[in-house]
Amino acid sequence: MPTGPDLNAIRAAHKRIAPQIHRTPVFTSSTINETSGAQLFFKCENFQTTGSFKIRGATNAVLSLPDTDAKRGVVTHSSGNHAAALARAAAMRGIPAWIVMPSNAPEAKKMAVLGYGGQITECEPTLAAREATATVILERTGANLIHPYDNPRVIEGQGTAALELLEEVSDLDLVMAPVSGGGLLSGTAIATKELHRDIRVAGCEPQNADDAFRSMRSGKLEPAAKAETIADGLRATLCPLTFSILRERVDEIIPVSEEEIIAAMKLIWERMKIVIEPSAAVAAAPALFRKLSARGNRVGIILSGGNLDLGNLPF
Amino acid sequence: MPTGPDLNAIRAAHKRIAPQIHRTPVFTSSTINETSGAQLFFKCENFQTTGSFKIRGATNAVLSLPDTDAKRGVVTHSSGNHAAALARAAAMRGIPAWIVMPSNAPEAKKMAVLGYGGQITECEPTLAAREATATVILERTGANLIHPYDNPRVIEGQGTAALELLEEVSDLDLVMAPVSGGGLLSGTAIATKELHRDIRVAGCEPQNADDAFRSMRSGKLEPAAKAETIADGLRATLCPLTFSILRERVDEIIPVSEEEIIAAMKLIWERMKIVIEPSAAVAAAPALFRKLSARGNRVGIILSGGNLDLGNLPF
Repeated sequence: MPTGPDLNAIRAAHKRIAPQIHRTPVFTSSTINETSGAQLFFKCENFQTTGSFKIRGATNAVLSLPDTDAKRGVVTHSSGNHAAALARAAAMRGIPAWIVMPSNAPEAKKMAVLGYGGQITECEPTLAAREATATVILERTGANLIHPYDNPRVIEGQGTAALELLEEVSDLDLVMAPVSGGGLLSGTAIATKELHRDIRVAGCEPQNADDAFRSMRSGKLEPAAKAETIADGLRATLCPLTFSILRERVDEIIPVSEEEIIAAMKLIWERMKIVIEPSAAVAAAPALFRKLSARGNRVGIILSGGNLDLGNLPF
Repeated sequence: MPTGPDLNAIRAAHKRIAPQIHRTPVFTSSTINETSGAQLFFKCENFQTTGSFKIRGATNAVLSLPDTDAKRGVVTHSSGNHAAALARAAAMRGIPAWIVMPSNAPEAKKMAVLGYGGQITECEPTLAAREATATVILERTGANLIHPYDNPRVIEGQGTAALELLEEVSDLDLVMAPVSGGGLLSGTAIATKELHRDIRVAGCEPQNADDAFRSMRSGKLEPAAKAETIADGLRATLCPLTFSILRERVDEIIPVSEEEIIAAMKLIWERMKIVIEPSAAVAAAPALFRKLSARGNRVGIILSGGNLDLGNLPF
């Protein structure tokens, strides 16, 4: 029987998914280090298959299904990186993937899903419509719902990015990841704290979508913020599973302003010559702009992805 | 006595400059390979110190100066990547660098030179004014003119990028580099042909700045084209030294349209998640868009740099 997410499960996930994903490089930059006053180690999930870390969790979830369940396929509702990741993970196992996407999802996101052979069902752009549509498909097909983060196998898969980072870079003082639904941050925190209890773990979140910050402060799940953020991958809210993991293992949630997100993104593009999406910049901003007492520290930063519309940049 | 550029000199240059430059990675992309119908190996000089390959030649030239000459410093006139590269190479040796820049040079380029401790002298934005200003400085200081490409030590330094590529990737059929003044292409052709006589070498050039194409066809140095190109690093023309090397060792010059340059740049940013400048895209465009019979071939492409104004993108 599968147990809850822990280091052993993350190690098992890594072994399971390794043949289907990239081992992404860890980048450093001396000019970025000068700017930040710390030594920063960037885990480049923007170079990951499908352009984001999401393929780790999706692949682990799909490969963990028993054959009898798997053959009925998988379902999710997502307008973002999880959609393409699940389509690709399903294609690699040779099973169908039904992806419920809001009718206003960007064309590029739809093309990515179709490119991996996913079957798109469009719906009204509301959470209620997405869930209802997914339920209809589930009932019709008997397929398996693969939630983007409220799923232990997904969390374990996402934890493999931190596992690789910690294998490669020694003596880190702090590991930072963006937080939205909390799948990546949960996996990151489990891997980090079980390997090195003394490494701090911080989640970074847009100020405009700061439900994790408020939930950690109040001790109960707070609703989504109303404001918009450029970090379109970070608009989801924690679920009970990820919230409980975060409360136990994450030291701090750091809100990041829209201006800082854009400035961090531009700085990393300019100096490191890599394309990262706004959600990835959220995790870099606090270290870049000295919001934490990171001076002299060795900081691991998970750059979550590199998918964005080049025709619509904020600078 | 130093001899003309050959493989031994390139090997010596590599040993000389290795402590001061990055060994840049070679990137591949399965989706890019699908698009091109060939196997492409990208030598990522956009990740090089100063953001371009130019630091290789500048460092080799500066380190090759005898102490008595070196202490008087170095001079060049450039509005591009060579300016920052020479400033940085001089700083590493602890000697002054005077950089003559046109008054309309982008602020970012000036800041890069100043950041490395270079001393900027501004002049009217004409070649005559640049050369006259450099001459005045040379006479006043007794410093050494380091031309961006009409210099054997610079050519040998630029050849080290191909040397690294060929060490890392076996069985290449074709190596491609952009051509402007011809320093990079000369060094690339020498390294490639002396290591593997049967590998083809192609230079890629904007159609709008196609003097190398015309010169190779007519057999004499043709003047610069009048039209503008987005590939701002590729507006120089061959000199007798680089022309003679190209005639002997380059198989083909491929003109690339402005539309192809922009499309190649966008494709590489989107799919490979790396920031490359238009001049680098010029070398990738022919392989990406099947202008060469590269199907099934293994093609090495030197991505020359990643410096550009993010606030002024062509897409």
